Amino acid sequence: MMSIMGFFFRLFILFGLCSLAFSNEALGSNEFPRPLIVQYPDNIIETRLTELDEEVKLQCTSWRFSVEANNIGPWKTIPRECLEYVKDYLMGRGYKMDLERASNEAKVYANTVQLIGDGKDVWIFDIDDTLLSNLPYYQEHGYGTEIFDPVEFDKWVEKAMAPAIEPSLKLYEEVLKSGFKIFLLTGRYENKRAATIDNLINAGFQNWDKLILRDAEDHGKLAIIYKSEKRNDMVKNGFRILGNSGDQWSDILGSSMSTRSFKLPNPMYYIP
Amino acid sequence: MMSIMGFFFRLFILFGLCSLAFSNEALGSNEFPRPLIVQYPDNIIETRLTELDEEVKLQCTSWRFSVEANNIGPWKTIPRECLEYVKDYLMGRGYKMDLERASNEAKVYANTVQLIGDGKDVWIFDIDDTLLSNLPYYQEHGYGTEIFDPVEFDKWVEKAMAPAIEPSLKLYEEVLKSGFKIFLLTGRYENKRAATIDNLINAGFQNWDKLILRDAEDHGKLAIIYKSEKRNDMVKNGFRILGNSGDQWSDILGSSMSTRSFKLPNPMYYIP
Repeated sequence: MMSIMGFFFRLFILFGLCSLAFSNEALGSNEFPRPLIVQYPDNIIETRLTELDEEVKLQCTSWRFSVEANNIGPWKTIPRECLEYVKDYLMGRGYKMDLERASNEAKVYANTVQLIGDGKDVWIFDIDDTLLSNLPYYQEHGYGTEIFDPVEFDKWVEKAMAPAIEPSLKLYEEVLKSGFKIFLLTGRYENKRAATIDNLINAGFQNWDKLILRDAEDHGKLAIIYKSEKRNDMVKNGFRILGNSGDQWSDILGSSMSTRSFKLPNPMYYIP
Repeated sequence: MMSIMGFFFRLFILFGLCSLAFSNEALGSNEFPRPLIVQYPDNIIETRLTELDEEVKLQCTSWRFSVEANNIGPWKTIPRECLEYVKDYLMGRGYKMDLERASNEAKVYANTVQLIGDGKDVWIFDIDDTLLSNLPYYQEHGYGTEIFDPVEFDKWVEKAMAPAIEPSLKLYEEVLKSGFKIFLLTGRYENKRAATIDNLINAGFQNWDKLILRDAEDHGKLAIIYKSEKRNDMVKNGFRILGNSGDQWSDILGSSMSTRSFKLPNPMYYIP
């Protein structure tokens, strides 16, 4: 988009050039003042850049759609040409707006659900980039352009400094107030339990009913398998999974799926 | 976005005004030629509209993602403020690009699947806005801003004039060539069988293995239930559902889900 400032600047220059020209002797009506001709190539270059931006925007929006609609196969890094697009999306209003919309849709649904109230009505939340934001980590690691580095990421997790995703915290509190049991189902390992609890508490989350992490036997399992198995266990134990919030399709699909699921945006990484 | 044409038009006007001014007597250096001042308020209005457009674009993109990620609850019409956005998306390159991307992702997957080749490897296609485009109908009916009118829509279906969605036709042909059986599973009723076959043939589709329409007992069933039942039957009969293409989440979710599914974009309507 051509910015307002840029547009006014251009207008200002043109006004200036016209008035400058007027102070000189009059030219023939079919001659253009030279400075305007000198400006011309600059404008063309800028227009081309704007067009390129629009093309990249269109392509990267389409890529993001294929991620969020779960059409795309497993991917390791975001397309390199989408770095600026993804950064703008994450740091600008787009990501925030999408998170709020997902949270609001979930709230609308949560308020229509008739709970039985026997302690078996469950809402599942994933943790990473669902309740807690790893955006500060990905800011330091190329916004998804770098291959995932488990050693570096573990250090970040141990710091327990991930901030809450605010719209998710609001949903969490609303769901809790409505009488759902909250089950946290994360791909993190048991050795991160203490750091995870610290981080959740520091970020304002409390009163969950279960915090389920991967134990030794879950090592190496695809997330979609591990999470399905944990949901199967819940169903076997008589729980009704009524809501499920996650940023990965592997949080949502598989067996014992929730009555309704809410896919939070995540154009940074993919977990199969 | 300020279009190239718009920008050159503006440049052309300013050039013209300057040269027009030069042909008159010279003005003082702090006086602006009047026509440029008259132009000024117009430009401000246009800039404001551009800004408004950006906000609407952001909000409507967010709405579209909540549709495509299946976060949104059932909806009857698109948000009225998104009419221009949805129209631009559908008639411009965005929709085409998203359709092509969904088709390409499906092709990549189809080529990796190891078929058993016993005639039981199945790819399911939905029909409306998956194989056949109802865009010409929705162009005449407010691009999703009007409540669905089954009588009018039936007339359109009977005409059998819906064009192929080209990227889906390419996928269809590739999948067929690879040795999949193609099952067409549509929410249309049996009384539309002849018109549907005519339309499919006219649009270039052929050699499907089954065309499944709703019969009397499916009347009033939610699409997600009806389509799940039909998929259950396929599985009971030994078919392996390896791929599924549809523009609605009710084509994809439910029981006997496909190994991989591909959600085609559709910001025009929602079928539960």
